Amino acid sequence: MANRSLGIGLVGTGFMGRAHAIALRTVGSVFPEVAAPRLVHVADVCTERARNAAEALGFEQHGADWRALLSNPGVDAVSICTPNHLHHEMAHAALSAGKHVWCEKPLALDPDEAASLAATARDSGLTHLVGFNYIVNPLLATARTIVQCGEIGEPVGFSGRYFEDYMASPDVDWSWRCDRELAGSGALADLGSHLVHLLETLLGPVESVMAQLTTVIAERIDPATGEPRAVENEDIATTHARTVSGVPATLDISRVASGYKCGLSFDLFGTRGAIRFDQERMNELQVFNTGDRKGRDGFRRILSGPAHPDYAAFNPAPGHGLGYNDLKVIEARNFLRAAQTGEPAWPDFDAGLSVQRVMDAIERSAARGAWVQVPRTTD
Amino acid sequence: MANRSLGIGLVGTGFMGRAHAIALRTVGSVFPEVAAPRLVHVADVCTERARNAAEALGFEQHGADWRALLSNPGVDAVSICTPNHLHHEMAHAALSAGKHVWCEKPLALDPDEAASLAATARDSGLTHLVGFNYIVNPLLATARTIVQCGEIGEPVGFSGRYFEDYMASPDVDWSWRCDRELAGSGALADLGSHLVHLLETLLGPVESVMAQLTTVIAERIDPATGEPRAVENEDIATTHARTVSGVPATLDISRVASGYKCGLSFDLFGTRGAIRFDQERMNELQVFNTGDRKGRDGFRRILSGPAHPDYAAFNPAPGHGLGYNDLKVIEARNFLRAAQTGEPAWPDFDAGLSVQRVMDAIERSAARGAWVQVPRTTD
Amino acid sequence: MANRSLGIGLVGTGFMGRAHAIALRTVGSVFPEVAAPRLVHVADVCTERARNAAEALGFEQHGADWRALLSNPGVDAVSICTPNHLHHEMAHAALSAGKHVWCEKPLALDPDEAASLAATARDSGLTHLVGFNYIVNPLLATARTIVQCGEIGEPVGFSGRYFEDYMASPDVDWSWRCDRELAGSGALADLGSHLVHLLETLLGPVESVMAQLTTVIAERIDPATGEPRAVENEDIATTHARTVSGVPATLDISRVASGYKCGLSFDLFGTRGAIRFDQERMNELQVFNTGDRKGRDGFRRILSGPAHPDYAAFNPAPGHGLGYNDLKVIEARNFLRAAQTGEPAWPDFDAGLSVQRVMDAIERSAARGAWVQVPRTTD
Amino acid sequence: MANRSLGIGLVGTGFMGRAHAIALRTVGSVFPEVAAPRLVHVADVCTERARNAAEALGFEQHGADWRALLSNPGVDAVSICTPNHLHHEMAHAALSAGKHVWCEKPLALDPDEAASLAATARDSGLTHLVGFNYIVNPLLATARTIVQCGEIGEPVGFSGRYFEDYMASPDVDWSWRCDRELAGSGALADLGSHLVHLLETLLGPVESVMAQLTTVIAERIDPATGEPRAVENEDIATTHARTVSGVPATLDISRVASGYKCGLSFDLFGTRGAIRFDQERMNELQVFNTGDRKGRDGFRRILSGPAHPDYAAFNPAPGHGLGYNDLKVIEARNFLRAAQTGEPAWPDFDAGLSVQRVMDAIERSAARGAWVQVPRTTD
Repeated sequence: MANRSLGIGLVGTGFMGRAHAIALRTVGSVFPEVAAPRLVHVADVCTERARNAAEALGFEQHGADWRALLSNPGVDAVSICTPNHLHHEMAHAALSAGKHVWCEKPLALDPDEAASLAATARDSGLTHLVGFNYIVNPLLATARTIVQCGEIGEPVGFSGRYFEDYMASPDVDWSWRCDRELAGSGALADLGSHLVHLLETLLGPVESVMAQLTTVIAERIDPATGEPRAVENEDIATTHARTVSGVPATLDISRVASGYKCGLSFDLFGTRGAIRFDQERMNELQVFNTGDRKGRDGFRRILSGPAHPDYAAFNPAPGHGLGYNDLKVIEARNFLRAAQTGEPAWPDFDAGLSVQRVMDAIERSAARGAWVQVPRTTD
Repeated sequence: MANRSLGIGLVGTGFMGRAHAIALRTVGSVFPEVAAPRLVHVADVCTERARNAAEALGFEQHGADWRALLSNPGVDAVSICTPNHLHHEMAHAALSAGKHVWCEKPLALDPDEAASLAATARDSGLTHLVGFNYIVNPLLATARTIVQCGEIGEPVGFSGRYFEDYMASPDVDWSWRCDRELAGSGALADLGSHLVHLLETLLGPVESVMAQLTTVIAERIDPATGEPRAVENEDIATTHARTVSGVPATLDISRVASGYKCGLSFDLFGTRGAIRFDQERMNELQVFNTGDRKGRDGFRRILSGPAHPDYAAFNPAPGHGLGYNDLKVIEARNFLRAAQTGEPAWPDFDAGLSVQRVMDAIERSAARGAWVQVPRTTD
Repeated sequence: MANRSLGIGLVGTGFMGRAHAIALRTVGSVFPEVAAPRLVHVADVCTERARNAAEALGFEQHGADWRALLSNPGVDAVSICTPNHLHHEMAHAALSAGKHVWCEKPLALDPDEAASLAATARDSGLTHLVGFNYIVNPLLATARTIVQCGEIGEPVGFSGRYFEDYMASPDVDWSWRCDRELAGSGALADLGSHLVHLLETLLGPVESVMAQLTTVIAERIDPATGEPRAVENEDIATTHARTVSGVPATLDISRVASGYKCGLSFDLFGTRGAIRFDQERMNELQVFNTGDRKGRDGFRRILSGPAHPDYAAFNPAPGHGLGYNDLKVIEARNFLRAAQTGEPAWPDFDAGLSVQRVMDAIERSAARGAWVQVPRTTD
Repeated sequence: MANRSLGIGLVGTGFMGRAHAIALRTVGSVFPEVAAPRLVHVADVCTERARNAAEALGFEQHGADWRALLSNPGVDAVSICTPNHLHHEMAHAALSAGKHVWCEKPLALDPDEAASLAATARDSGLTHLVGFNYIVNPLLATARTIVQCGEIGEPVGFSGRYFEDYMASPDVDWSWRCDRELAGSGALADLGSHLVHLLETLLGPVESVMAQLTTVIAERIDPATGEPRAVENEDIATTHARTVSGVPATLDISRVASGYKCGLSFDLFGTRGAIRFDQERMNELQVFNTGDRKGRDGFRRILSGPAHPDYAAFNPAPGHGLGYNDLKVIEARNFLRAAQTGEPAWPDFDAGLSVQRVMDAIERSAARGAWVQVPRTTD
């Protein structure tokens, strides 16, 4: 099946649906190693949106019924870009229908859902990938290498933040993101899942957490009724964490962080150096090496370039800059390459499950005001 | 002809050729307002490169003969991505063959070539566009609005720089870029053309210049012979300029600027504020307003977002970042939209001609050690 | 007593002792509102150091006996710059001897010591000041005004960090700072006390905390013996906190943060804006206002200048920059002015006591793995 | 005479006069290697200002007559902090009276004045120093070492800027700074003199220049009359320069650069690296080394610390930050040490003369629109 062009089905046509579609249209020209996929079928609960998306993004078929999409024999692989509460059912059905699955984060609403999905995926022999897009940044791949190769010595501490302000204003309406049933947790699921995955990618699995969750704006106007409606999940999530390898970490997550637009940032300290990163300057990695001569030492501002993984596929010139959509192209390549070759994809549903377990432990910890172990038994 | 999918011919498969092709593959999904073009024909002087490009980038036909490409009736529009000395002949032939032309910068080797091209283009009724990609950045469109709407008052000064280090090492080989006949000027043509165009976009045409050109590394190894060969154009070009509107400007351009990878930056001062920009942080625009309260005033770091032109087509979320290739997608949209609607494209060959005249005046000024007027008679 | 030149006694001649002396020598010329003090007596446990300091810094008398210093009738006010475990005894004795006291942070080793000191100070009618130097930065005074005047709306979150790397290397020797008896806690007392005080200054008293303490490097070489010796306090302290006013906060504190030299930084979020600050760029304050026009909004980088409190005393020109020693001069002014006028000083021993209680709660919280209330009963 | 405390006379009590006095009061405690000077006599054309300054800054005597100050036998050394047109006469008289002279920049109004001063100074055997304060920054001393030791290879280019906005507003009144007779040139003398001296310090003497001068705001209100009055010197000065060693440079100088408060910045490129500096972040030096491993290379942000010259005298801890007034303290040390030891001071009047010649050449070049050689004959 290697290098056969895959037929794609896309469910959900919002921000992420569109980002997947653009990436899938682009990936073949950036990464000739994968066959350009065919955009076969798009589904959205709203027929009109589905039709518009089909036209704008170039899908052959469209409709409101995602199950019809899964029955489409031309669809080999499915992108799931719907609200969080639908991930579980849809991904399950897609795998059962024999489709490779690229599912947006968070993988599910709770660890049970995630575990069942991961088990199904593992058994299926199909490709499964969770949409942690920031992690595929060539500079974060480089950060991972720096850690793994000991370039900054033994890790001793991690301080991570993910700040955005999309709900900072009390005037922002109530939406499904405020609904426990539909979104799961709030800032934690939406933003924190990225940060937890980043931490686990760089330093290995989290062992235990101790968290504090805060809802700053208790009610927002429900546009359906014009009335105030309770916000059921947190605006701010902060947690202590400890990795299995013994490294203390802090994660500071907020969707009410005025002024921040994509403020995923971290400091990672080692015995021989440190790494700093800020997604708002996603083409820069700051690295400090203690071995540098005194008086000439300092954080180096490394600009992304062809010396970093995958960058050269976009551009042979250093410092010319990748964008958010380029990350989605790398992700699309990861997904399609795995589906074409049968090699494992990364980050897969097991990675998504691990993040889900950490997030669940964070919620339980906050509720109990105590440290909570992240369960690590395989199910 | 509106909204008919255009057939594209691409000449030259290096850095820029590939960038054009990727952008043309992507543009239809990002900007549904233009019909996704068909990639019809690719030409490269090296048949093997042409074949590889056709395969990797998805062109229907390929070959070494660019004239055959121009004869291809399926080709409606041509991207010219060859070394500078070929732009004139190819663009001429393409326009004569009735093809819309998207030509990489600089438009030509000298003002005569550029003027004849611009005249031909003007008379043709076809779409013509020069590939000044940085200028289509949503934040630079915003900068233009800020200047034009008087948000920073009357312009009083401009200080621009374009620093890269791709030839900083004496170990970099001699290439066509060092050859007067093939490249025209050195850093000036390659980097400076962008900066001159940026200046003219923000502050109107340049009236006069006084320049200094320096070749830092006099000889480089010619890989064809293994022998040293003279570098025939400048590594560093600096110029004073004065716009027709009376604003003094400095342009500082270098291809031997160690550490800089895409260092196109400027300060633009007005009577009521200032703008700063740095292409290495292309998603940030710094704006100062003198009207801000004392003690609370400072340069604002504006992150690109959907409030800026064209950004929302890529991404509805502010601060998520565009990349270099996204600029090429905007450029492709500009080109295709103009070709589809018959509206003028921007920046067109007249803009390219104006830049060429300024560059020529810079060279003459440096040779004579005196101020030189930029000729502004229409030809 | 107003405007009478005060006689100063200084105990301890290390980093801080010298900083106090330089500030006291300078303060009269920068702030003519206070009479230049006389440097009367310097004491250091090591006679040679005391003599050298007297000579270098211009004290009239010197000696190893700090009690003799307190008996010196020419001494009106005492600077206590000794290791932490001596603060309590010395400050007590000084107040009892009728001297004004400027004591370095942390005020004491535990809340009992601090409470007894604060009570003594309160009863004495004398001036008492704790050396939280960073907080007197004109830009932090401005930050306080911004918060208090509601310029960023209601506070909703605080994320603070204090990173330094002075003990990041395993090769750094064991010192009194590693000794529980002499230093109290580790990074918390040395660095965290500043951050706790900053938080309480901006957002009011801390109500409860939940912390994690980690000792990264368990043993260091004791230079006295050449043998490894246990490090008895933490290298990293991280805590959740909640203010009495209900704002969630995180504090992330490390003395093993490679690459950071004075990394006291924070984000403070409000419903209508945000503030960012980084001590390594102590002349810049970043402020975001949600009221700014979309597409023109961003963090403003405010440079310190005469529009900010106390700056103009140093320099009439904005952006020319204050340094660390200038902060000590402001502190000296605060101390001397209070002593001369009888007005209260700030931050006084009650502020130091409050910080001590928070730090103690942090330690108990970490030991118990649970939230701990900060006791707030006055004693 | 070594280590004898010098008696200081200060002429002029504005921004600079006060800065000198504060530095002279502080220098003895920061740099015990010099004897703390005695502040003996202060003169200001306005008696009241002189009296106030004497009181505030602690001078023993004061008066309106600077010649009386020079006759004061207690005065060993004189700080000249008056408007530019008085430097020549006062410095001459001071040297003739056998006083060491610390004169603010620019040294004089024209090269003839400067040459006569330099000759007198050279013959006098006394200490003479020009107040180029920025250059004594420990990080610029480090930059000098980096260049001299070849750490960035052979210099190939320099791009310098000095932007301030103190006259950006048309509402700023006319003052002596706008008067050709009193100030000499405008932005060039006030700001550019620093930049020229910086260039000559790092890369050796300037051989030739080609400049453009622009007065943006032709008239300002004269507060004496309430009427508009012509601004007689330039707001913006830009120049090409070439050093005797053959390095091309640009200098971009403006006093109408909105948003900049102390924007002295430069890029210095070499064959093996580069240096960047910005006075608004005066505690940071950016250094790039081409020898760093690809993919790990980038500008290092070096924070000032005790590894750099003179820093440790202020503070043993790196990254804690020096301020503008600290630079004046270093300058005071340089002056007093030279006066005490008889060793030459730096930068001396010959350095000031060299800068004056370059500035004069810049003015002549702008007037003639041609390159002008900087005369280098010794007089």
